[in-house]
Amino acid sequence: MILELADIRIQTGQNAAFEEAIARAAQTVIGHAKGFQGFKINRGIESPERYVLQVFWDTLEDHTVGFRQSEAFTQWRAIIGPFFAGPPVVEHFELVAKSV
Amino acid sequence: MILELADIRIQTGQNAAFEEAIARAAQTVIGHAKGFQGFKINRGIESPERYVLQVFWDTLEDHTVGFRQSEAFTQWRAIIGPFFAGPPVVEHFELVAKSV
Repeated sequence: MILELADIRIQTGQNAAFEEAIARAAQTVIGHAKGFQGFKINRGIESPERYVLQVFWDTLEDHTVGFRQSEAFTQWRAIIGPFFAGPPVVEHFELVAKSV
Repeated sequence: MILELADIRIQTGQNAAFEEAIARAAQTVIGHAKGFQGFKINRGIESPERYVLQVFWDTLEDHTVGFRQSEAFTQWRAIIGPFFAGPPVVEHFELVAKSV
């Protein structure tokens, strides 16, 4: 399993609308992509315009090729892109350890 | 529940030793703190010297006051601090949405 971690900054005053949009888009657009396992969306406490989206994928390529090169990626960005204050920072991760 | 997200960069060539150290310290030091619920440690694929530590706490103050002002924080930093390439970036988050 691969973790996609997207660090997102939105324009001020748009929290409620953005949260509705990204939750809907994650469920209905990313949620149907091949290799999708699940997502979490978190809002910053110190930085309320900062959101961290986590998406769990079967493989790296399910996100970077399968999803990003699909029509679904265009839909996804059309829904959440208008809220961005800048380009999101996206990288991928492997689990090293977790609590027992 | 509160998510602590720590963005860590380590010195090159130290991955194996750092992973052993942080997993041990998370389990034995943070794992005994009041309000601790669990942790995950992820290593970057694009940036192998980047690690994202997630710690789940009952409340914000369990981390910022209870843990950081305790002797356990000194122990924690003594174990993982020597690997840092710079100060970690730490913020806290609230869950907005997750997959159903």
